[in-house]
Amino acid sequence: MSEIKETSQHLKSLKIFQPSIILDSNKVLSNIEQMASKARKSGVVFRPHFKTHQSAEIGSWFRDFGVEKITVSSLDMALYFAENDWNNITVAFPVNILEIEKINMMAGDLQLNLMLDSVAVATALEKQLKYPVGVWIKIDVGYGRAGIAWNKKPAIRELYQKICRSHLLEFEGILTHSGHVYQAKSTSEIRDIYGTTVQRLDKIKTSLRSAECQISIGDTPSCALVDDFSGLDEIRPGNFVFFDLMQENLGVCSAENIAVAVACPIVAKYADRRELVIFGGGIHFSKESLIDEKGEKIFGYLTWLENGRLGPILKNASVVALSQEHGIIRVDDEMFDQLSIANMVLIYPVHSCLTANLYDEYMTIQGNKISRL
Amino acid sequence: MSEIKETSQHLKSLKIFQPSIILDSNKVLSNIEQMASKARKSGVVFRPHFKTHQSAEIGSWFRDFGVEKITVSSLDMALYFAENDWNNITVAFPVNILEIEKINMMAGDLQLNLMLDSVAVATALEKQLKYPVGVWIKIDVGYGRAGIAWNKKPAIRELYQKICRSHLLEFEGILTHSGHVYQAKSTSEIRDIYGTTVQRLDKIKTSLRSAECQISIGDTPSCALVDDFSGLDEIRPGNFVFFDLMQENLGVCSAENIAVAVACPIVAKYADRRELVIFGGGIHFSKESLIDEKGEKIFGYLTWLENGRLGPILKNASVVALSQEHGIIRVDDEMFDQLSIANMVLIYPVHSCLTANLYDEYMTIQGNKISRL
Repeated sequence: MSEIKETSQHLKSLKIFQPSIILDSNKVLSNIEQMASKARKSGVVFRPHFKTHQSAEIGSWFRDFGVEKITVSSLDMALYFAENDWNNITVAFPVNILEIEKINMMAGDLQLNLMLDSVAVATALEKQLKYPVGVWIKIDVGYGRAGIAWNKKPAIRELYQKICRSHLLEFEGILTHSGHVYQAKSTSEIRDIYGTTVQRLDKIKTSLRSAECQISIGDTPSCALVDDFSGLDEIRPGNFVFFDLMQENLGVCSAENIAVAVACPIVAKYADRRELVIFGGGIHFSKESLIDEKGEKIFGYLTWLENGRLGPILKNASVVALSQEHGIIRVDDEMFDQLSIANMVLIYPVHSCLTANLYDEYMTIQGNKISRL
Repeated sequence: MSEIKETSQHLKSLKIFQPSIILDSNKVLSNIEQMASKARKSGVVFRPHFKTHQSAEIGSWFRDFGVEKITVSSLDMALYFAENDWNNITVAFPVNILEIEKINMMAGDLQLNLMLDSVAVATALEKQLKYPVGVWIKIDVGYGRAGIAWNKKPAIRELYQKICRSHLLEFEGILTHSGHVYQAKSTSEIRDIYGTTVQRLDKIKTSLRSAECQISIGDTPSCALVDDFSGLDEIRPGNFVFFDLMQENLGVCSAENIAVAVACPIVAKYADRRELVIFGGGIHFSKESLIDEKGEKIFGYLTWLENGRLGPILKNASVVALSQEHGIIRVDDEMFDQLSIANMVLIYPVHSCLTANLYDEYMTIQGNKISRL
């Protein structure tokens, strides 16, 4: 029997008949193990970003690898993990002063670290804080999203001094997210961006003349590619826990690393266009896409189960369109003959963070449900 | 005081401090009224698609305009509205035979209509059905997603005859969704597509020699532009209930029609690049984008409240990037001076169906919560 049929039968035996996110827990564990081991060898703190999985249970798996400190991207996410016994949490998102109540709910009970990039917000925060918090200065090393631009030394110094004068803001260090690596055309370009990032942060640290200033970076492409984190104190990758087609396309992971796929039923088959329609659309994948080797926009590739794990990336079966609930899979002749209406198929997503966010729970390949925020 | 400040204060008075979807219920009512009135004048059944709002309460507003029949795009959505007293429901999505239990749960209690485009699925359905259902033959008039291609008369006839021979499948008519209107470059192109659609469906009806064959179409652009639905029996638009920037960009609605916006806090401000960062990302908007007049990709435009309603589309303040929780707003000088950190701003989404799907509830401008599926 073909892998397609075996996969379909297995999913049906788990009573999966509509779009669901399937988790390969062995791959997750191996992804965590690899990153934790690299961090340990370099002697840096491994503070994984939990925004990708947003699950207390998956979070707990990190503890076996020595992880005690985590990163999140919203105060609600911080509250969720705080309730699940994490007591050292960095919120790697500009402080939203309107949510000060949540900050004060946590700041007295745990080591809460916040991210600042302006004196204005530092002042507002200090005024409304009831307990001390750790603070990181966010530096923009070239991405152009949040942070003080790396070459604005006076602005960085001014914020640093503001923090030093405060009794409630405890300076932790400087932090960045080099999101521009996602635009890189090659792995050597990612390595270059990483090198420039470390260099720029190091210069800022020197200019601050602060011995206790830590340096923290946090993007999966750099953290996955680089083996030696010399010059850093902390890494905060997040996506690596699942990886996805975007990371594979960047060359920073392979099919062996991608740990989530969306299970979808095939509901229609069109021989003349070599296309199939699945129940599985933008509300099940998100609309993130990438450009394949032929220059076509794709939203996912088929995979199947192989030895109980999520298998190869089947580039001859790509999701070429998504509307709200419909997805269109385009296949070659060989694949077309293997696929039938009422098969359940597995599809690797382009961006696992946004895809996972669309579900209330994961289902492991073994059929265990894992809840998320 | 400026509209920006008044809007911000109003949202804060409703205790909105993080991304939330705001509903202008007056606009919704007026959108429903306009479409219902056009359908009535043309003497066609108005069977609105409820996939856009997915809310029992908003659904109930349609009853005042004489609506008794609805469209949904999944069996779970059908179950939800069935529980909320709708007893004539068309599921405008290819039958997912794996969910036959849900079909049988409803088929005995209400007028359930399903959509078929192959003899294979019709056979499987007939075999597993416990009660009769209405069936529509889905025709692909040129979109290339689901349905039998309009020019494949023998395949259409074969399915029609299969349905006629069945005691459980009750033929309703032929149905299409001309999704290719979303690629149109002008409103006259949309009108042309509509004209061709009606013509092709009419030819099919004639060739089937079936007096009782109804013709049903269902896309918001055509239904919003066309005033006279001669030749049709039923219209099934969905998005028109909220409209959005995509529809405005197509020229089928104006700012006065767009009935939802996402409220987001401004968390950072960067004078040198005339950009602001909001708490509001891909998980709050979806990643649907459109190309503006300058050829740039945008994910939303700012608006404000004007006389208690969602106001103009502010094209000098556009969302130019979205990551998971971050959004970047690019503004002109005048707008930059008006916007401050800790303001709550309102942003019109590109695709309201996908945006609304990311929330558990709506908040009206008056502060009432409206739940959804």
